[in-house]
Amino acid sequence: MSSGSMASLSSPSHTRLTSIVSHLSDVRPKVVICRHLGPAMPLLLDRKDIDIVLWPEDRGCERAWLLENIKGAAGVLVLLPERVNEELLDAAGPSLRVVSTMSVGYEHIDLPLMAKRKIRVGYTPDVLTEAVADITLMLALMAGRNDGVAYSLVKNGGWAKPNFGWSPFTFCGPQLSTTASSPARTVGFLGFGRIAQATLARLVPFGITHCIYTSSPTSRPDVARDAALQTKYNLKVLERVDADRLARESDVLFVLTPGGKETYHIVDATFLRKMKPMSVLVNTSRGSVVDSDALATALREKWIWGAGLDVVEGEPAITTDHPLVKEPQCVMVPHIGSATFQTRLDMATRAIDNLIGGLFGGEMPAEL
Amino acid sequence: MSSGSMASLSSPSHTRLTSIVSHLSDVRPKVVICRHLGPAMPLLLDRKDIDIVLWPEDRGCERAWLLENIKGAAGVLVLLPERVNEELLDAAGPSLRVVSTMSVGYEHIDLPLMAKRKIRVGYTPDVLTEAVADITLMLALMAGRNDGVAYSLVKNGGWAKPNFGWSPFTFCGPQLSTTASSPARTVGFLGFGRIAQATLARLVPFGITHCIYTSSPTSRPDVARDAALQTKYNLKVLERVDADRLARESDVLFVLTPGGKETYHIVDATFLRKMKPMSVLVNTSRGSVVDSDALATALREKWIWGAGLDVVEGEPAITTDHPLVKEPQCVMVPHIGSATFQTRLDMATRAIDNLIGGLFGGEMPAEL
Repeated sequence: MSSGSMASLSSPSHTRLTSIVSHLSDVRPKVVICRHLGPAMPLLLDRKDIDIVLWPEDRGCERAWLLENIKGAAGVLVLLPERVNEELLDAAGPSLRVVSTMSVGYEHIDLPLMAKRKIRVGYTPDVLTEAVADITLMLALMAGRNDGVAYSLVKNGGWAKPNFGWSPFTFCGPQLSTTASSPARTVGFLGFGRIAQATLARLVPFGITHCIYTSSPTSRPDVARDAALQTKYNLKVLERVDADRLARESDVLFVLTPGGKETYHIVDATFLRKMKPMSVLVNTSRGSVVDSDALATALREKWIWGAGLDVVEGEPAITTDHPLVKEPQCVMVPHIGSATFQTRLDMATRAIDNLIGGLFGGEMPAEL
Repeated sequence: MSSGSMASLSSPSHTRLTSIVSHLSDVRPKVVICRHLGPAMPLLLDRKDIDIVLWPEDRGCERAWLLENIKGAAGVLVLLPERVNEELLDAAGPSLRVVSTMSVGYEHIDLPLMAKRKIRVGYTPDVLTEAVADITLMLALMAGRNDGVAYSLVKNGGWAKPNFGWSPFTFCGPQLSTTASSPARTVGFLGFGRIAQATLARLVPFGITHCIYTSSPTSRPDVARDAALQTKYNLKVLERVDADRLARESDVLFVLTPGGKETYHIVDATFLRKMKPMSVLVNTSRGSVVDSDALATALREKWIWGAGLDVVEGEPAITTDHPLVKEPQCVMVPHIGSATFQTRLDMATRAIDNLIGGLFGGEMPAEL
């Protein structure tokens, strides 16, 4: 272990092993770990074949520390806040073989540069699909049912105040589930990958009848898959449509597409003006897809009913002056879509497996 | 129309009809409507065969107004806050034939007294099942995923503060859905009626594997129904159990049972102490079933993970001093389980249909 590490491998119980592997010590690859990984840490600390440098504090890794400690490293485990760019690669030097990010997103990593320098890149898709689909459904319900305002009212004592007059339409919002007198619902997906499909599965028992989605123009239609999903979920419609129809027809619109230039501000004022006045927008993918100012205007001027966001452009610098924070019909949580003990442990484990695979030239469970 | 009504039936377009039915005016039964019913009002106002007295303000009906105006009425349409007791019946006099409540609950109505005086009673079950099941699932997700705290943090600008350190287990909670590495979930229902079963249906795509429930000791087991549900939802277990097993085995426990003496404080300190430390309690039925002080202790001392409540004993007098309002792990909304435009319109329509049926000796769609 180098200086900067939190734990030691040379405990008494490791004495014999240490002597056996001591001849390897000169070639043990150095790896930098940018955050303590909680219950997943033993998967790293118990290994005798790596030299671990761990950011020692329970907060974001400082850039200066990272640039200093990555010198001569063969691998680095990063998270979304760590920019993996030329500066970092130059600081590491030619020893760097693998970058493993504990995230499904990889916009913080300069992929062309990585390819040029032949550095392998691992990420953690799939394992967070279910957790994000859970919170996606939750935000759709919260935004439709005014639950941000309702929650704040109770926490501020407003339930007990005389002006809390119960009347038949107090706190009413559009209903996600169908009823006998309101038997049709259209859900729309901007992006129709794993998380979108897991969200659709959760929506089926709500009586959803129509599902429409928009995919990247460069992607090929998958007619067989769509037909299979339509049959499986007994939907009247499951159809790939253009963005215009997606905006016009969705009762709930889910943004579940990667970030980056291709999807920047797809949901802008023009898009939002086409949406139904009782519709709800949910974004649990990347803040950059939605124009925050346009969305705030749409909520204020009642172009749409409500919004539920786990991500916002410019996060985490979202202050009380932010136009969406000021909108009562906007429910926001701080990018916690994958924040469950089960999923974060799986993500950490996957990131470690990718790191080890890349270090020793083996298989990486999820390589970009 | 009597004085106190908000709308007039004698608009110009009604002149001919008014003259036709004018000979009936002496026998038109008087009905008192305790709240404006929004878009459902035309169903009452368009009728020529009733004399409507409508509480004229957009807030709870005052008792003194009701006692005064109900004199000689044949029917009354009430909501949960209106106590239908001997005082009210005596004020109405022997003309009263029907009480119609726009609610699924009827603990505000003295049913034995109604039977004694041969007054018919209507209520509005079924039509709110889907709306309440929606919010039940939402509260389970919010309570598990710390979304009360997360929402407040963003709304108060905390996302932007330097001490918001993203680390792998920040804001983590137990995951409702199953994952490959965490493949089992047990949901428990205290009460297994319509809303509980609609909630179970919504939980199936989350990968729920076990469902247990407790019913009133006086109810008969329904083995055939349970076997059919287990097959339909592909569950490893669907079993009626005692309250002890329900508390010990549930990952998420849903309280969905009527209020009243039989269920008073079933969820008390003894019950809560048996629950799993990572479990979540959701109550969307009646506040009286859960001992609020015991639940606050359970949350504070981490006997359980979190709670999501749409109902609280003593509501709406729930101030910031209330022990549950003070608990960060308690998510609360102000009894808005059925608050959607679709469902409240259906409830109002059903309440009007019950009222008219009872007035004229016809069928009431949902009679107690």
